[in-house]
Order: sequence, then structure tokens, then C-alpha cells
Amino acid sequence: MSIGVWTLEEEARELRQHMGRLVVSTGGRSFLAIGGELNRWLQSVDACDGLLTIFLRHTSASLTVQENTDPDVQDDILDALDRMAPADGGWRHSLEGEDDMPAHIKTVLTGVSLQVPVVDGRLDLGTWQEVFVIEHRCGPHQRSMTLHYQGT
Amino acid sequence: MSIGVWTLEEEARELRQHMGRLVVSTGGRSFLAIGGELNRWLQSVDACDGLLTIFLRHTSASLTVQENTDPDVQDDILDALDRMAPADGGWRHSLEGEDDMPAHIKTVLTGVSLQVPVVDGRLDLGTWQEVFVIEHRCGPHQRSMTLHYQGT
Amino acid sequence: MSIGVWTLEEEARELRQHMGRLVVSTGGRSFLAIGGELNRWLQSVDACDGLLTIFLRHTSASLTVQENTDPDVQDDILDALDRMAPADGGWRHSLEGEDDMPAHIKTVLTGVSLQVPVVDGRLDLGTWQEVFVIEHRCGPHQRSMTLHYQGT
Repeated sequence: MSIGVWTLEEEARELRQHMGRLVVSTGGRSFLAIGGELNRWLQSVDACDGLLTIFLRHTSASLTVQENTDPDVQDDILDALDRMAPADGGWRHSLEGEDDMPAHIKTVLTGVSLQVPVVDGRLDLGTWQEVFVIEHRCGPHQRSMTLHYQGT
Repeated sequence: MSIGVWTLEEEARELRQHMGRLVVSTGGRSFLAIGGELNRWLQSVDACDGLLTIFLRHTSASLTVQENTDPDVQDDILDALDRMAPADGGWRHSLEGEDDMPAHIKTVLTGVSLQVPVVDGRLDLGTWQEVFVIEHRCGPHQRSMTLHYQGT
Repeated sequence: MSIGVWTLEEEARELRQHMGRLVVSTGGRSFLAIGGELNRWLQSVDACDGLLTIFLRHTSASLTVQENTDPDVQDDILDALDRMAPADGGWRHSLEGEDDMPAHIKTVLTGVSLQVPVVDGRLDLGTWQEVFVIEHRCGPHQRSMTLHYQGT
């Protein structure tokens, strides 16, 4: 099954880490691409080869890696999540609006912590991949992330 | 879209790692908050700034980050997962009880590996965030996690 | 609730990192176990104790940790994902075949980035755990992963 394994970097080099914060303004119920912003931060801390962790500090928005070519893909994903966590699902928790509990469920399904390898100072994404914040609430929000880079 | 990016720590400092195990007793089908225990472990290994990885070594329980204020949120999440993986779903795998296969599916959807940044020796969680083990089986279990810290 | 916490490694030791690529050929809509291949790569870079990150560079296949004993478990998980993202779900994005949009949704739900602790040069998995690539497309594909190891 394995076609091949190879090693990008054989030499051990001195490791360092950098941490930062990224705050974004989301539109309601939508994807927001953040790959460009992450690459700019990696450049600002002089990253070379290593690993970037993005941690979103919220419970009703999440992180994902998906394609960024056909915008229909994002709409279909939002619809699929709506079907799994519908606004009229009869949820107990309703004090913060009928979009709040579905947003928590969608966040559990998609996650708030994400790791992406970094090669030559840039996110080592596949051809069709982009990193997104998914806003699950109906209205726009400010969302804060902690960035953690470890590498050379 | 970006409001601001800033760097918490600009100086490279010597990195180290620590590994440990955390074993907890879960109640059946419930959330168990472990943030306090994780912070105690971070303190015991003298962690400062870095990244904590929690890896749950099981296939029918999982890890998540969610709010810890209104207990209804946890009950609604458990219900949502039940709807996605119902006990009467007609699953092939039934030897270990009708709650076992749904527990595997819920584990796939929510994940067993989680990363949380650490700042000043404590989990850098958002205001409303807590780290949980979700027990997906009906009965109580002992669940074992490997903890991995890398940082200063 | 806590039964016990202990530390596997108390001494700070010099950290290093290695990066590599693993390319596999998947069958259509199936699980592919990659734990053996990952252990071979860890051995080839002389890994001891640390953390392995696996990042799958695609948007219609994903990574998971699940049991590898009863093959029914894998079939049931594939069925559960089909129910959440059915081929006849009325998706907008259909240019690449009716299995493509469901594959994107399943990838969002299960994730492309995974971390596993490494102890004594091997994946520190639980008794019943195995690492899998899940191919969500109907046909076979070549899938590429970036491997990142940091540790001693």
C-alpha cells in the first residue's frame, strides 16, 4: 500500500518556538480563509521548517481545512452541519438564541485545535487545501486564536 | 478581516518536553472536565509557555473543548451525538453491547487527540472553554491519556 | 475523579525534529491502516520519545484513530458517515461526481491533522487503537501525508 516514504530534513537543527494571537472578524454562518494571514505571521517570526498549531478560543466557531475553489463546497458543508444540528432541534439550551446550541454542536464536530506543518516558512498545504475559521453563529463575531509555532 | 496579530513571545528560549499519563474514572455517557487536572500536571513539570497535547488511548471515548457554564449544553451535545449514531442504528458490530458501535462512531466524530497552548504554566483557554473527556459508553470506565508538553 | 497522574520522563533532553512524506494508495471508500508504516518511519529517523503529527494533504480523505479488530466497525463507521453525508443529499457541488461533496463533508467531520505521542520510538497507542487513512471517494486514490516528529 505504501508508495514511498522520504524525509524532508535529515539534519537535527536547533528548535525554537513562537506564540502569537490572531483576531478576525467573521461574517455570520460562513467560512473565513486565514491561510494568507497565517503565512504572514510565520514570515514575521522568521519560521523555516516546523509545525504551526492554531487554537480557536471559542465554543461556537471552529477550524477546518477544506478546498477553496468552488464556493458551493462551503455552502454545502454549512447545510450538512445544519442538518446534523438543526436550529429547531428541540435543544434544552436556548437562552442565547436558537442558533447558539447548534453552533456548540457544530464546534464539537469540527474542532478548535488544528496543526499544519510548515516548510520553508509557509503552510505545507495540499494543492486544494485552505485553512478556515467557520463561524457557526448567525451574526458576525470577533474570534481570537492563539498561534504556536515550533521548529527551525 | 484581520483585526490584529501580535506575538506573545519574541525571544527564542531553550525548549524541553515532558510526558505523563492521566487516568480518570468516567461516569457512563457524560462529560468529565479535566482542565484543573491538566493545569496541576503542567505545574508539576514546571511548564511555562508551550503546547500541551492530550491523547486519549481508547476507541469509545473522546476529547473535546466546550463551554462549562450551562450543563444543558453537555446534555444537548450528548443527544445530538445520539441522533447521529443511534443505539438502534442497525449496526453490524453488536457483540460488545448496543452502546459500543455508537460509541466508536461518536469517537471518530469528536477525536482522541487535542492540543491546547500553554501560557504562564496554564492552559490558554478562552473565557468559556473547558477541556472534557466524553464517555460514550453507557457504563463508567477508566480512561487513560498520554500527556505531552513541549515548551519552555 | 482522577485516579493518578505520573510523569514518564522527568529529565529535559535535547529536542530535535524530523519531517517526511508518506504516500499511500487507497482503495475506494475504505479504511487503510498506516500504523506499521508510521512506526517504520519513526525508526528510520531514530525517534525516541516525542510527538508525531500526521497531516493529510487532501480534502476528500481523512485521518482517524479507531479499533482494528472487528472489520465490521469500519463498515459501520463508513455507513454512519454515509447517513450524515448521503450521495443523494441534493448538494450544490456536483461537478466532480456525486461522491465528491459527501467526501468533503466527511473530511470536515473527521479531520486531516492528527497527533500521536511516541514512546521508545513507537506510536503510544492504546491496546485497541490503530491509525487509519479513510478514503471517502468511491475510487482508489494516491494520498500524500506530511509527517512531523519532534522529540528526543
